[in-house]
Amino acid sequence: MTNPVTKDRLHYEDLSVGQVFELGPKQVTKQMIFDFAHEFDPLPFHIDEQAAKRSLLGGLAASGWHTAALSLRMLIDTFLGHAASMGGLGFTKLRWKRPVLAGDAISGTVTISELRRSVSRPKWGVVTLDFDMHNQKGQQVMTMRLNNLIEVRNPDTPGEVGS
Amino acid sequence: MTNPVTKDRLHYEDLSVGQVFELGPKQVTKQMIFDFAHEFDPLPFHIDEQAAKRSLLGGLAASGWHTAALSLRMLIDTFLGHAASMGGLGFTKLRWKRPVLAGDAISGTVTISELRRSVSRPKWGVVTLDFDMHNQKGQQVMTMRLNNLIEVRNPDTPGEVGS
Repeated sequence: MTNPVTKDRLHYEDLSVGQVFELGPKQVTKQMIFDFAHEFDPLPFHIDEQAAKRSLLGGLAASGWHTAALSLRMLIDTFLGHAASMGGLGFTKLRWKRPVLAGDAISGTVTISELRRSVSRPKWGVVTLDFDMHNQKGQQVMTMRLNNLIEVRNPDTPGEVGS
Repeated sequence: MTNPVTKDRLHYEDLSVGQVFELGPKQVTKQMIFDFAHEFDPLPFHIDEQAAKRSLLGGLAASGWHTAALSLRMLIDTFLGHAASMGGLGFTKLRWKRPVLAGDAISGTVTISELRRSVSRPKWGVVTLDFDMHNQKGQQVMTMRLNNLIEVRNPDTPGEVGS
């Protein structure tokens, strides 16, 4: 049965390993940092400029979770919003390499590093997406790997299979 | 030099492996799901109730990233907001096990699974925190492991050391 919501979107068969999506740039303002941090991550270096200057981060810095959420949003605008995504499975290897400070602009790439079909569920494919995010100086700020379920258009065709 | 922001907070020496923090419960409303998803994760099953019913998730579901951010916030209220946290390093093994649907209440535990001192930076400790989040039916919805930097109160004392 074709899903009417996703039928015209990119499916498993439309993707290939090595495909790269460009993300951003997106500027991260002080107000954005405050808003996110007050809701989800109210630690001193995310909500108090004076405390932030005395912290390891060296200045008011976005929550690392905020950086990840903004990166996710950029991937949706560029790719996942046009794909027959069935939802995320999880993340591995998320690393915050350097703070994102107020006024920084983040951009980056997402590369498809693996594609596999489910053995038990022929309609399911898994796409592995590697994020590589930088600031406006070209310095790496975050990497993460997302595994996302995506619909297979023709489940009856054999495919390279995973778990 | 003592950090005036964090001097009265929990330091590395105050923590022990096996320590458990209780999180929540926190109810996740339809409006919360819409608000977060429109900003960060605008996929059909997070912003459109009809599309969500036809999706694998079976109904309007919170962005997995929203579940993670809410879990982080609960940990800050319970523990990290009272600790001399220097920031997160990243996480491994984030897994979404089951959707968090509109109206669900999430709660869970965070257990300290590892503590280690930095060799090169005597003032730094790393605390590894394992999240185990459930819904109101007791079903597991998410697990993740976060590595967080925390200040060592007495850097001159020898400690078990890591990398």
